[in-house]
Amino acid sequence: LDLLVELRPAGGATLRARLEDEIRAAIRAGRLAPGTTLPPSRVLATQLGVSRGVVVEAYAQLVAEGYLGARRGSQTFVAARPALPAEASAARPASAPAPRYDFRPGVPDLSAFPRRAWLAAGARALGGLPDTRLGYGDVRGAPELREALAAYLGRSRGVVAAADRVRVTGGTRQAMALVYRALRARGVRRVAVEDPGWAPLARAAADAGLEPMPVPVDDDGLDVAALAPLGAGAVVVTPAHQFPSGAVLAPERRAALLDWACASDAIVVEDDYDAEYRYDRAPVGALQGIAPDRVIYAGSASKTLAPAVGLGWLVLPRWLALESGGSAPLLDQLALARFIATGELDRHLRRTRRRYRRRRDALLAAVAAELSGSEIAGIAAGLHAVVRLPAGCDEAATVANARALGIALDGLADFRLTPGPPALVLGYANVPEPSIARGVAELARALA
Amino acid sequence: LDLLVELRPAGGATLRARLEDEIRAAIRAGRLAPGTTLPPSRVLATQLGVSRGVVVEAYAQLVAEGYLGARRGSQTFVAARPALPAEASAARPASAPAPRYDFRPGVPDLSAFPRRAWLAAGARALGGLPDTRLGYGDVRGAPELREALAAYLGRSRGVVAAADRVRVTGGTRQAMALVYRALRARGVRRVAVEDPGWAPLARAAADAGLEPMPVPVDDDGLDVAALAPLGAGAVVVTPAHQFPSGAVLAPERRAALLDWACASDAIVVEDDYDAEYRYDRAPVGALQGIAPDRVIYAGSASKTLAPAVGLGWLVLPRWLALESGGSAPLLDQLALARFIATGELDRHLRRTRRRYRRRRDALLAAVAAELSGSEIAGIAAGLHAVVRLPAGCDEAATVANARALGIALDGLADFRLTPGPPALVLGYANVPEPSIARGVAELARALA
Repeated sequence: LDLLVELRPAGGATLRARLEDEIRAAIRAGRLAPGTTLPPSRVLATQLGVSRGVVVEAYAQLVAEGYLGARRGSQTFVAARPALPAEASAARPASAPAPRYDFRPGVPDLSAFPRRAWLAAGARALGGLPDTRLGYGDVRGAPELREALAAYLGRSRGVVAAADRVRVTGGTRQAMALVYRALRARGVRRVAVEDPGWAPLARAAADAGLEPMPVPVDDDGLDVAALAPLGAGAVVVTPAHQFPSGAVLAPERRAALLDWACASDAIVVEDDYDAEYRYDRAPVGALQGIAPDRVIYAGSASKTLAPAVGLGWLVLPRWLALESGGSAPLLDQLALARFIATGELDRHLRRTRRRYRRRRDALLAAVAAELSGSEIAGIAAGLHAVVRLPAGCDEAATVANARALGIALDGLADFRLTPGPPALVLGYANVPEPSIARGVAELARALA
Repeated sequence: LDLLVELRPAGGATLRARLEDEIRAAIRAGRLAPGTTLPPSRVLATQLGVSRGVVVEAYAQLVAEGYLGARRGSQTFVAARPALPAEASAARPASAPAPRYDFRPGVPDLSAFPRRAWLAAGARALGGLPDTRLGYGDVRGAPELREALAAYLGRSRGVVAAADRVRVTGGTRQAMALVYRALRARGVRRVAVEDPGWAPLARAAADAGLEPMPVPVDDDGLDVAALAPLGAGAVVVTPAHQFPSGAVLAPERRAALLDWACASDAIVVEDDYDAEYRYDRAPVGALQGIAPDRVIYAGSASKTLAPAVGLGWLVLPRWLALESGGSAPLLDQLALARFIATGELDRHLRRTRRRYRRRRDALLAAVAAELSGSEIAGIAAGLHAVVRLPAGCDEAATVANARALGIALDGLADFRLTPGPPALVLGYANVPEPSIARGVAELARALA
């Protein structure tokens, strides 16, 4: 028998632990093939210059772990098991260099994240917390945050919410998975989604066993008349600022949508993702405030603070209890609760609203000056706008050209379920004004 | 027309905003019934003593929001919609007073949570973070944490993990929802679960459309021989310390379990929930280390740090990519990554392991002294033990008596899918030693 393993020095580890590690590594790496008989403990101990007890204990440990087997007569061998064929995991592209201009929609100004205030809120929340609160809490979320959200959403968005109707989530994706599961349990089979729309909404519906049904969107938002023939039991809408078209759902459409929901006993899921930002008039209240038993309201801190905060919320109708599913980390919940209750969030929103309005205006001016023949839409609210390209433009080629120039943006086709005229989606909240002007000027060279 | 609303003073709000709020509140509260015609703007303005423009704008806003409708001839009325019947939401019991002795299993010593070190790790992680990282990141988790976990799990648990096989989650519940969905997509229909076991595992399987199949557990852990006839495509096990029986899966069972999985092309989900704590010998490595392509490994920070941390992880076989589902907040992930990388977690585990061992020994001594005829089991590892009551004891009555005495604990029946002999589950990690002795002495009075 040859020497199978050698005891390489490993700071602080016992001889036995080092021997175990070596044998495990050899088995994993395939150096010790399944079925191989190991040397008797006495022999290996002599080979390695250790006491026999070290080898006996190491073998026993590895038998306990299943790496080795023991036959009658105390022969020790490498346990054998067939392996699963390795299926390729999705290949990931090497990370591209950072774009010079990043107009991708969906993020607020990340440099504005109030790091110091956020850390202070978290430290103060943890400082005063009784030990028992560090255990498992209410899966619906920390009471402090649910109270703070109920008050905040009531005063800022017209949402009718008592704290016990608020469900804290890990963000809109997790929230929608919960909602879709509840809808399915309620008997819903088809769910209408906006087209164009945020693709993960439709994907998550399909994941939950629902059939997503695209509904067209125009300048007045979701085409409610197109809903009726679909036989959907629910619809997911972005009334305050449609994503990605930027349309605000028109008053008559709002009424018609709720009428449709009542007439067909359907549920409206209101994704209020960036409604805190409205520039041309006072914000329109949430649909939920008009029909709180018909509307499931979803929001998050991703657009008001940053996606890294990782918190979202639902306001649920009285007939719906969502007590399964995961919860969000308590310490973040308490930090956000304090952030809202102390007025920090309002202060932050006042600051960023002014900034985003200036950036929006810079985008409007730049598009008018540089992209002749284009038309900008969706500018009343939110953090992004849509630039409709002149007829005959090739959207895909324009997007590709722009990316080659170091300008990151999305084409509207990236969000469409059915084809439509060429357009670009430009997020402006995370781009400083001088870069907006320069970026759009360079974008003019990309038009194809 | 009578005065419908009055403009109560509201600090700082404009007349128009106050009027809108009053009308909204009146509609919500039912004071303004659907279909009610509102006074003409000129009339209401006169009644309220405000300029007509205030009322016109308020009406227009509420029409835009759907609270009001407008008829030809500019009559304004309250929009009408039928309400959903309110189904009762689950009634919640009023919160009970804190127990004098809390032996409920599942939590570590919450007073040991290293608050200062945790906050410092979070502050340092955020301090050095580029702004771009505050946007949407990799749904699989922050690279820093996936690297730290791969190294930690490799050295401490014998897990074979490269960082790109680690999926960070919001805890084991969220992780299991992801895993079950993936298993179902792979064609699995039945999943075996331990009986007794942690009920949410079976519930989450059913939620995902899988059929949970109970498998009995004895002193050697899961009865692998009972698995084969079930036709399960997957099994969820707690090999290091079965929950709640406390059994360690015996070496021959470990081998037999993997053999079964290979022979029937099934998947093992290893819930390694409290394996960092082992008292009588060196920890047994994870099953995953022997068959990384056959085992999905699940762990969390809930037992090593605290449930409030809200982070868990999966180590996935090469053939499984879990890129859907929610992610965990970035800042917590970075705090934990730093906590692991700087050795804080190891220091914390060394401290708590010593403490839990003392508490376990105190429990052993107290049960021997006070609960004659009882037998304690599951003490080799973890944060809880099982006390088997003398034959003829009434478990449910004992638990009820104990609770009436202010002693919180669970009966084993709370975790059983099929009936079995009377036993109590006692978590000791979160109870100081003097309280363990006193609590068990009082518990003796509860035996029924």
